[in-house]
Amino acid sequence: MSLQTPNTTAPVILTGDRPTGPLHLGHFVGSLRNRVTYQDQYRQFIMLADAQALTDNMDDIGKVHRNVVEVALDYLAVGIDPTKSTILIQSQIPELAELTFYYLNLVTVARLERNPTVKAEIVMRGFERDIPAGFLTYPASQAADITAFKAGIVPVGEDQIPMIEQCNEIVRKFNRTYGGEKDILVECKAIVPEVGRLPGIDGRAKMSKSLGNTINLGASADEIRAAVKQVYTDPLHLKVSDPGHLEGNVAFIYLDAFDTDKEGLAEMKAHYTRGGLGDSVVKKRLEGILQDMLAPIRARREELAKDKGQVLQILKEGTFKAREVAAQTMDEVRKALGLSYF
Amino acid sequence: MSLQTPNTTAPVILTGDRPTGPLHLGHFVGSLRNRVTYQDQYRQFIMLADAQALTDNMDDIGKVHRNVVEVALDYLAVGIDPTKSTILIQSQIPELAELTFYYLNLVTVARLERNPTVKAEIVMRGFERDIPAGFLTYPASQAADITAFKAGIVPVGEDQIPMIEQCNEIVRKFNRTYGGEKDILVECKAIVPEVGRLPGIDGRAKMSKSLGNTINLGASADEIRAAVKQVYTDPLHLKVSDPGHLEGNVAFIYLDAFDTDKEGLAEMKAHYTRGGLGDSVVKKRLEGILQDMLAPIRARREELAKDKGQVLQILKEGTFKAREVAAQTMDEVRKALGLSYF
Repeated sequence: MSLQTPNTTAPVILTGDRPTGPLHLGHFVGSLRNRVTYQDQYRQFIMLADAQALTDNMDDIGKVHRNVVEVALDYLAVGIDPTKSTILIQSQIPELAELTFYYLNLVTVARLERNPTVKAEIVMRGFERDIPAGFLTYPASQAADITAFKAGIVPVGEDQIPMIEQCNEIVRKFNRTYGGEKDILVECKAIVPEVGRLPGIDGRAKMSKSLGNTINLGASADEIRAAVKQVYTDPLHLKVSDPGHLEGNVAFIYLDAFDTDKEGLAEMKAHYTRGGLGDSVVKKRLEGILQDMLAPIRARREELAKDKGQVLQILKEGTFKAREVAAQTMDEVRKALGLSYF
Repeated sequence: MSLQTPNTTAPVILTGDRPTGPLHLGHFVGSLRNRVTYQDQYRQFIMLADAQALTDNMDDIGKVHRNVVEVALDYLAVGIDPTKSTILIQSQIPELAELTFYYLNLVTVARLERNPTVKAEIVMRGFERDIPAGFLTYPASQAADITAFKAGIVPVGEDQIPMIEQCNEIVRKFNRTYGGEKDILVECKAIVPEVGRLPGIDGRAKMSKSLGNTINLGASADEIRAAVKQVYTDPLHLKVSDPGHLEGNVAFIYLDAFDTDKEGLAEMKAHYTRGGLGDSVVKKRLEGILQDMLAPIRARREELAKDKGQVLQILKEGTFKAREVAAQTMDEVRKALGLSYF
């Protein structure tokens, strides 16, 4: 199989996931779906960020290891094509740790502590004063990941924008100090996908494995059915004849995300809000759409899962290819830092 | 040339220097002299810590690069034998950065901030709130250096003992969490050399390039003569007939460190303290000893400096050999962390 990207002059885009659990509809809407498009427009690197996942999973490293192949299966099942996208495993590219090491000299402790994303995640994870150093410093690690591949575009959630800003600060400081005539590192641009975050089936703002409110991409037909039954709708919509509300109504939010028959959906919304339409009808439509959408993904996933050796081979080839790129950048950085001798 | 260590079952010792300037008598007394002995007792790794030197020399990286070969010349000139000791360049062993990356997850920010050595150096370097992250985290980097070679012994100054304690905390935490039946990492023991720190020629506590109070190992005969003339003695010893004092008298401190004729020295001290012995006589003795001691070192250094390519070759071979050891440790660590896939 050729792993050559179709267009080597296209801009580089870096995306990825922490492999801590199976991917779900939230990932599909927020990123996976876009990546299938990106791979025809950009040179796409997709990183399985296992090393970064360890920063707050040092007590359950087996989970990270297990999920590397599971997440790769999700990638391939949704249509990420290893002949177009380079899928890599972060920990297998030591240059990423090496770049991180040097970038730590370009950022102050105070600056890291001011990073809003880091601050929010420290609160979220309940670290308080016992923050692992690797967690505080992970913006430097992320800057290493982005710059190693000279990515000019990084799709992120709104809340991750400060990470991109910090990366660019490091890039500018590096180029200013060690760049000479030609900039060595490349600044990147955050793109925030139009469709925002998908709520969980329980109506909470975020679909998240740890909240148990997800529909996984590999979910069985029964699991999809059961999940749709639980989908949060309008608590004031007690009788079919009552007018229903759309705001915060997860069934309609999901339909907005996945229903391609926009006209039919608009009619259904109108009917629902004026009253006379039961939740069961809405959920039936939603279930049908999700079943249709996920059935081929599940089938591909099951087929691929039969030969995990082949999946590992794809990861190996992608990682090897990515490492060549990262090693080239590391070489330039090492030279700029005066750390070349032999 | 064979780079085989004479005894591969001997304990491993790690020593080294930040290559930020030529080495001087203070290094000779505090460490170099001992290393010449250690290399017959231990498997000695001597690290040119260029990557660590960057943590507070990012504004003058040329200095670090230049001094790698200069410090190596000092090593070889004093009798460090590359067939017995493995001399390595830190930055050329990416596994050291990689280990650092993972150790950062095993130490909290609060713990790093409490490290007395780090605290003292932050004050000394005037960092205050603008501490580069790489500086705060350098205990993790030092732990990486020590454990990569499975060093059981690390000679350090009194002030560096907290670094060794922090290294061992990381080792214990790693082994406890990921070690399984067999410990992967090795705890190390600090040894503090008997002869303490040599004062500067001006009487200040520390001989230091930045204070301009050193006698370099490569000093010319004239430089040695000029330096000895400046050596701080007893400011109350105005006339030859006055009784002189030994405390804080750098001429006598140096004689204590270098004069092998202990009896003759004792007599001279007695004469000096009861009065009737001029500083010039003491300094003459000191100069003679230093000239005799440094002349062969300087000669060897000049000889070696004629072929820097050969010095680089020695560093290349040492680094290559050291990298094999570090890569082996990294492999074990990666496996323990569940980061092996292919």
